[in-house]
Formats: sequence, C-alpha cells, structure tokens
Amino acid sequence: MVASGAAAGSSVGGAPGEEASFISALKSEVLTYTAMNGLLMLESSDEVGLVHVPVSLLPAMAVPRGLFEEVRALAEPFNVLVERFASDPVAIKETLAAAAKQDEFTRDLIRVYDAVLGGPRPSVARKNLAVNRSDYMMDQQSQRLLQVELNTISSSFGAQSTILAQMHRQILSKFDFLRQSHRGLWPGGSLLEESEDAASAQSRVPYQDTIGDIVDAFAAAAGEYRGSRGSALGPGGAVVLMVVQDDERNVMDQQILEQELWRRHGVRMERRTLAQVAEEATLGEADGILRLGDSREVAVSYLRAGYSPADYKGAEEWEARLMLEQSEAFKCPSIAYQLVGSKKIQQYLAEEGALERFMGKGEESASLRRCFASLWGLEDLGDPKTKEVIDHAKKNPHLYVLKPQREGGGNNLYDEKLREALEGEGDLSAYILMQRIVSPMHKSYLLRKGECVNADTLSELGIYGVYLCDNGREIINKCSGALVRTKLASSNEGGVTAGFSCLSTPILH
Amino acid sequence: MVASGAAAGSSVGGAPGEEASFISALKSEVLTYTAMNGLLMLESSDEVGLVHVPVSLLPAMAVPRGLFEEVRALAEPFNVLVERFASDPVAIKETLAAAAKQDEFTRDLIRVYDAVLGGPRPSVARKNLAVNRSDYMMDQQSQRLLQVELNTISSSFGAQSTILAQMHRQILSKFDFLRQSHRGLWPGGSLLEESEDAASAQSRVPYQDTIGDIVDAFAAAAGEYRGSRGSALGPGGAVVLMVVQDDERNVMDQQILEQELWRRHGVRMERRTLAQVAEEATLGEADGILRLGDSREVAVSYLRAGYSPADYKGAEEWEARLMLEQSEAFKCPSIAYQLVGSKKIQQYLAEEGALERFMGKGEESASLRRCFASLWGLEDLGDPKTKEVIDHAKKNPHLYVLKPQREGGGNNLYDEKLREALEGEGDLSAYILMQRIVSPMHKSYLLRKGECVNADTLSELGIYGVYLCDNGREIINKCSGALVRTKLASSNEGGVTAGFSCLSTPILH
Repeated sequence: MVASGAAAGSSVGGAPGEEASFISALKSEVLTYTAMNGLLMLESSDEVGLVHVPVSLLPAMAVPRGLFEEVRALAEPFNVLVERFASDPVAIKETLAAAAKQDEFTRDLIRVYDAVLGGPRPSVARKNLAVNRSDYMMDQQSQRLLQVELNTISSSFGAQSTILAQMHRQILSKFDFLRQSHRGLWPGGSLLEESEDAASAQSRVPYQDTIGDIVDAFAAAAGEYRGSRGSALGPGGAVVLMVVQDDERNVMDQQILEQELWRRHGVRMERRTLAQVAEEATLGEADGILRLGDSREVAVSYLRAGYSPADYKGAEEWEARLMLEQSEAFKCPSIAYQLVGSKKIQQYLAEEGALERFMGKGEESASLRRCFASLWGLEDLGDPKTKEVIDHAKKNPHLYVLKPQREGGGNNLYDEKLREALEGEGDLSAYILMQRIVSPMHKSYLLRKGECVNADTLSELGIYGVYLCDNGREIINKCSGALVRTKLASSNEGGVTAGFSCLSTPILH
Repeated sequence: MVASGAAAGSSVGGAPGEEASFISALKSEVLTYTAMNGLLMLESSDEVGLVHVPVSLLPAMAVPRGLFEEVRALAEPFNVLVERFASDPVAIKETLAAAAKQDEFTRDLIRVYDAVLGGPRPSVARKNLAVNRSDYMMDQQSQRLLQVELNTISSSFGAQSTILAQMHRQILSKFDFLRQSHRGLWPGGSLLEESEDAASAQSRVPYQDTIGDIVDAFAAAAGEYRGSRGSALGPGGAVVLMVVQDDERNVMDQQILEQELWRRHGVRMERRTLAQVAEEATLGEADGILRLGDSREVAVSYLRAGYSPADYKGAEEWEARLMLEQSEAFKCPSIAYQLVGSKKIQQYLAEEGALERFMGKGEESASLRRCFASLWGLEDLGDPKTKEVIDHAKKNPHLYVLKPQREGGGNNLYDEKLREALEGEGDLSAYILMQRIVSPMHKSYLLRKGECVNADTLSELGIYGVYLCDNGREIINKCSGALVRTKLASSNEGGVTAGFSCLSTPILH
C-alpha cells in the first residue's frame, strides 16, 4: 500500500527541508489525535491491535460554499423521498421487477419484504429510522456536485467524520503560525487569505455533530418505543441492537455511537451478528416484541451489516433479518428503505416524471434533479435510446460506469471491463449505466499506517441525513454533517478500511 | 505473558457459563473504552500500531475510606517537604555524600546541581514545578497504608489514571443490572451493599482530574514565565518542553497532557529527547532564556526522561540537562527535586529528627511519619543497630527489600538475591534496606493484550500532588487523584508498560 502510494505521488522524504519538517510535525499531531480520539480501526480481526484510520493530514476537498449549502439543503428532501418511495410497495416492486429476475439478492430482499407486508403486523414495516448519506462528486465540466449514490443502509463514518472535522479544525488553529508560511502546500491552503486568522481558517471546515444527531435519533426512537410499551416493558429495558459483520475492522466508528448513546441518554447498544441474532433473539408471536435473551427488548434494529449477499451465509441469517423486520422495533433501515437505496431505483428516479411522482413538480423536485447525473436502465436493449447510449459507451468506456444492484464497494465496472460487459451476451437488467463524473484532481497528504505520501487524489463528498418516522408521522428530519473520502487518482476503488481511500474533510471557499 | 497469567490464575475460559458471559461483556466494554479514550500504548517502537494498556476490568484495590483520606491529606505536606529539602543544598549533599561515592549517577546529578548553584543565576534552581506521586501499599499486619516511595520525577500515568477512573465509574453504572448478580466475583463487589444503586457504587471510585490539575499547573507556570518576560517574549511564544525517552511506548499518557494543555489553555507542548534538546535548543548566555529553534521560548521543562543513567548516553545529554537546569524555565522537576526523591533521602527522613528538621515537630510531621515504613541506611556496617538489622535480614530475607539509589523499576533485590548482596563483600552505601510491606492478596480480572485472566494479585496506591513554587513563593499546592497498579502476586516486578502490572482504581468502603 505504501509502495503504491509512493509510486503515485512523491514521497515525503523527498520534500524540501522546511516543508518536510512542517509535514513531520503535522503527521505527529495527527498520530496523536487519532490515537486519543478513537480515529482507529482494528489492525486485523484479532480484536486487540489498533491502527489509525487512513486520513488526510489537512482538509483535502475544496468546495465552494454555495455548492456545499446546496447539497446540504437536499438532505431533508432526500429523507422524505426515501420515506415516500418506501411507503409504496407497488412502486418498489414494479421498479425492481426486472432486476430481481437477474439478481438473487434483490429477489431475497423482496421475499422478506413480502413476508412482512403479508404478515400479522404489516404496519411494523413503516417504523422507520434512517441514517442516509448522499454521496457527491464535483463534475469538472459543469462545476456542479453530482450525486454518485444515495446510501440508505449502513452509512458508515458518521462518527469518525465528526471527530476528523474536530481534528482538522484544531490543526488549522494550532498550526496557524506554520500554516501561513506554507499556504501553497495544499489546495485548501491556497484558498485561505494571506493574513487569514486561525478562527476564520477553522470555520472553513464546517462544524458537525453527526455523532450527536445519530444517537439523539436512536434515543428518540427508543423513547417512542418505551412510550408505546408503557408498563409492559420488560426488566432489562429497551436497547438498540446494532447488527454487525463478524469480521468488521472498522469497529470504532460503530463503538463511538455505542459510547455516546450511553453517555448522553443512558441507552444501551448491543452488538450482534445476524447469526447471533438468529441464536439469541426471540420474537413474540402475539405482540411482535423482539427480545435479546430473556429480558432486554429491542427498541431499534440498526444495521451495519445485511447490505451484501455475503452477510447472509444461509437460511438462519435470512430468518434473523425477517425477525428484525417483523418486530415492533424501529428499523434503521427497514427492508423497504434498503430497497429504495438500490441502484435501479436511483436510475428510475432520474427518468422523466419518476422523482415527481413522489415529490411533486415544484422547486423541491427541481433542486433534487439538478444533482442527478445521467443514468440509464438496461432492461430493454431493443429500445433505440438504450441502443444509442450503449453504442456510445462501447466507443467511450471512460465516460461511463456500469453499476450492479449490489451494495458495498468494489463491484463497479470501468473502462475495458465495462466495454466487455456491454459487448457480452449476458442479461444486463440488474445493472445500470451511469455517466462517469470526471472530478478535478488535487494534491493531498495522505497518511496510511503511519506512512505519509503526497499524491494526486480525487475526493467524494457525502452528506448525512437523519430521519425518524412512524407510519407517516415524521418525528425527526435533519441534515447532519459531511464526510469526505479522498483516494489516489490512480485507483478506481474507494474503501477506507481496505486502505484504498482516506477520510478527509471539506474546506469551504 | 498470557501464559504466565494463566499459570498464576484460572483462565477465564474455564469460568462457569454465567460468569464467563458477564466477564466477556465487561472485556468488550473495556476494549471499546480503552480504544476510544486513549488508554493505549504503542505495540512497539514502530510508532503506529497501538494496543490497550494493561488494566483490571473492575476497580481492584479495596481501601477503607478513612485510610484513603489520610494519605490524600499527606500530598500537600509532602509537596512542601520536597520544596524545603530541595531548598537546602547542604542537607542534600550531606545526606547523599556516601551514596554519591558509590553511585556514579548520583555523583553526576550532584555535579549538575553544583554547576547550577555556582553558575551566573543560582536562583533559577528554585523555579519549581512538581508532579509528585507518593506510592503506598497496605500493610497487612498494621492495617495501614505505608509509603513505598515518593516519586519526584516523571511520575507517570497521571493522565491515564484519570481516564481509567472514568471508565470504572461508567462500568459500575452501566453494568449495574449484571453487577448486582455477580457481587462475589471481585473483592470490590462484595463490599457493595446488596441493593446499592449505580450512583452510590460509582461514587466509591473517587473522582479525580489529574489531567486538568497537571495542565493547569503547566499553564500557570507558563503564565508566570510570560509575565516575567513581558514584551521581551519572542514571536513563537512560550512552550512547555516535554523531555522524553526515544524508545517510549507509553506515549499516550504523555500526549493526553499535550492535547489537554492545548485545548484548555492554548499552550503548546513540544516533545524532545535529551539528545534533540542538545541539538536544537540554545541557552541565552546573558538572559538564561532557553529557546527551541530560533523563536519559541521554553517556559517549562517537563521531564519524562532523565531519571535513569540509560537516558544519558554521553556528555551531550548531560550538557542538555545542565542547559535545562540553568535556564529561566520552570523545572518539572529541578535537579534538587530529583535528588530529594532518591531512596537515600527517603531513608534519611525516616531517621529520628530528620523529617522534623524541615517540617517541625507538630502534628503534620507526626502524620507524615505514620505512613513511613521502617528503613535502614547501610553506610556504617560497624554500627550495632545496622549489624543487628542486617543479621535479621540475612535470616529473614522475605521480610526486607534492598533498594538501590537508581530510579525506574526492576532494580530492587528480594529474597535470595537480597541475602546474597548482604552477605557479599560489596559496599552497600548506595543501597537502603527497607521493611517489605506484606499486602493482602486479592483476586482480580486483569486484561493484557486482549487476554483476560483471573489471578491472585497485589495492589499499590499512588497519590499525586501538584506543586508550583518560584523561589519560595508558593503558587499551587494541590492533592490530585489516585493511581492503582495491580500485579500478579507471583511477580516481584511492577512495570505497567512492560506488562508486569495493570492500571486499576481504588474502591472505597
């Protein structure tokens, strides 16, 4: 990893003396801050050794303040859009019908969804809690932020992005003296005014409290749950069940929420894999109460797993998921929310009139639509418009991305592989074709496993939205902070824990 | 390490089911808390991989509330005692004369001390800042806490002990439900009332803010320094210089102070080894101003190194130390304070009238004296009283400890090695003989590198005292929190970072 970084950029060891000593001081500050504030991940699955999460030393993504405010303003309407789409089972199943035929995972999810809707308490399907995250890239041509995808399940780094923003603000203040003499070192630095003071520089990294927003929403959901249970609530109280992957290395981002939920609200969070849920949890047939062990009732089911086929090793895991969905717990997210986050629905929403079906024809829809990239469905290869774009993509594969329904990084097809897939004989209905957003490259100092490289990078901006809604009664709808991931321009992959990209922050100008 | 633990106690894997599941939940809580709150140390000197510091899962040392308050009340008089002794160069040099003949390190320290006193600004020797820590063990026979030693240099774990106390208080509250059904699992548990509520149980782990007390004292010293410099203060401002060992693994305990000093007071702390000080720092001949690089002035020299001969690899390091001592910076500690913390002076103070020479004959001296263990000097082997105790120690080596002047763990002689030393021909004047305090053993759950063992252990209680005094003008004198270290009863060694002992907390009853 270090080697590829060094190949892609210039090694810091080669920097001129003054710059090198500035960067070395920054690196030491970052290693201290990450170690002391939970910006860590497991080194391996041995559960003990820790290493800092990959980060940029300084805020990496320069964003015009107006564009930043524009995408922030979309978080609440996106929350509403997901809720409205998810409340329309006919629309979900129609839209996903062709993809479900090709994609087994989509089929399985819809099967669970149908079981809930056809079960004894269909209204539990609409006890919705969401930590959504809409991801954007800067389109160099239009100079706009275009949506890459809308995550409705397991939107990660909400906790660590909050702490990283604190770190970058502290650095801009603490290194004020040095920063002023090194404005040219990083794109953000050259945006600062020559004599800009520390407080002003700091305020360019937007304040956020995504940790607080998420745990406040958990606590509010737990409060709703307790209210509905009243004196019937069991002796162990109501807990938040966090469903996790068993080989998770990025545990700190999850545990920060666990700790803060306890500190702020005295609400306990229990971590379990789907297999453990299958083993330990029970669902009351008469009342739909989900219990962990004998006593503790589950008020919220919070999924940091279950978005990938690999999370369902067998029938047990699917039964566990069904149990979660059929329970009276708030679902973060429900299976309907998860389905609405799929690529096919993203592509459908971009079709004429589709978004408007849920959000009307007013200014709100127009604003949402302005961030959409161009997207094409591939169900009907005989359709002249589809034929036309496929022909264009075969000739210009670098202008497109081919995305499968499946969630989780590493599945997209680019360049030659995209061309091969389009030229092949396979059915493409579980894929969507998307405009490849060409972003401006920028130099960043990236720190991974203690090794620092200065490299050409690309950045992606995520905006969190938190939402709580019980069968149409909206309780919380809030935009909540930003996440920047910065990756080497030479890589098509983007996973942070896997080491392909680094957490960073926006710097507004 | 794990193997020796398993040999000394019963492995947790062998515990009955309910207990094992309670301990497993505790362990997971502790791993989360330590990872997120800087209770970490470097796995090795590679500067990146981290692992939790060894800790006990629960407060390990049961202490009667009255005894705890008694030793807390000694912290301020001990601070004063150190200041008064350190202000009497004749007393220091007389007391250490015999030891200095035998011990090269003591001789070197006194040489630096003489150079400061004989230099152009002898008053800088009394710009004193102290983080003292008096360590006690429970004497089973007398049921009193007896002083093991008084640390005047590099008293470590002030920061991490504060965070560990927070962790143990949180555990007593969060695991309330489980704790009540497992009161018999640990000595502290059986002290709790049967139906004691979480808040009451929590309050048995004394609140402390040693982090705040230490950084407030640093900031006060920096303020005094800035006040005395006025408009002459250079552009980089006044910093705290933390002198560290180059292979330090316990960096987090130090960096927590660095971070908090910045957060609370906007005062910067710079970490340097003695060799780096020799290379980078300069001392103004005319004004005694110590500078790092060209601009930053050093307001406080804070030693987390320099207490062991190994920290002085050559003449450069000694020159660096002399530069620190001769500067106008506050010294934490000064060389005089360091000398007053030596074993020989501890033994001298226990002699009739010696303590009283500095503290008078009143109740204060009587209180201090009550915590003294029996100590004997070994300069005059012809003295009948010395002969008598040596004869007794040769026959009963298990009742004694033989301690060299040198600081840092691992140098004490016990049992057969003690007998051999006393029977040998060597000069013993650089050693003191001390009553071995026999403490009650207790079972503890210890967590080291993620492995949990339940073992017979012994605990030691440290009480911090913070002190700031400029040539007799006392500015701060404060008792500040507790440290418990718990070690396997089967080991004579006690280093936490080395893995021999674990950080813990007192539980009062």
